Amino acid sequence: MSDLDNSLPWLDALKWDADGMIPAIAQEQSGRVVMFAFMNRESLIETARCGNAVYWSRSRRRLWRKGEESGHFQKVLSIRTDCDGDVLLLTVEQIGGIACHTGRESCFFNELQGGRWIPADPVLKDPEEIYAK
Amino acid sequence: MSDLDNSLPWLDALKWDADGMIPAIAQEQSGRVVMFAFMNRESLIETARCGNAVYWSRSRRRLWRKGEESGHFQKVLSIRTDCDGDVLLLTVEQIGGIACHTGRESCFFNELQGGRWIPADPVLKDPEEIYAK
Repeated sequence: MSDLDNSLPWLDALKWDADGMIPAIAQEQSGRVVMFAFMNRESLIETARCGNAVYWSRSRRRLWRKGEESGHFQKVLSIRTDCDGDVLLLTVEQIGGIACHTGRESCFFNELQGGRWIPADPVLKDPEEIYAK
Repeated sequence: MSDLDNSLPWLDALKWDADGMIPAIAQEQSGRVVMFAFMNRESLIETARCGNAVYWSRSRRRLWRKGEESGHFQKVLSIRTDCDGDVLLLTVEQIGGIACHTGRESCFFNELQGGRWIPADPVLKDPEEIYAK
């Protein structure tokens, strides 16, 4: 990635936070919101270049090619930003139909019911099976 | 709001950031993601209590009852959190069918096309008309 790539006008138009991050929501074509993560410039450029979602892992401090371990890649169909330019919304085709490391379709499986968080979605595949090498 | 209310187990189960905030995605029943904002404990309690989305305005440093000026309230149908408990996903009925201050259905109207952000959705109502007093 050259310095030129890193200062493209469409990247400069976004509002990056103090850590150089922007939050990104991933939504399936069905409308299901499956994930929320962060991108830095490099990961967004790489996402736009390769066509699969690439996030920035804040815990591991490195590019995170979603699906690199699980095979559950996200093919990016569109990228939008909001009126403030400080959030991204990706429309994705979720390969394998599982976005969550718990083996569920979506990471948003805990629903507030009667003052408690209740897991409201089924586990589609055992995580041990997903991450078995 | 009593101290007791502010330390409910379902609130403590969430991961609040260093500023006491949690990001919240608002999604219409249709699947359309319409907004992204932040909540603090008080705004989430108030959201759960009154049934309309109440965010925390970081710029104005006060509770922000979505729709308080525009009339475009968000009736909350469900509240979910993700596997990490650090993001909220609200399913809402968007009163007036307009979530964005620009008069569009969704704040996510700018789509990346050919290396530029293109406004891809129509303005449904003139903002001057929305905010006229």
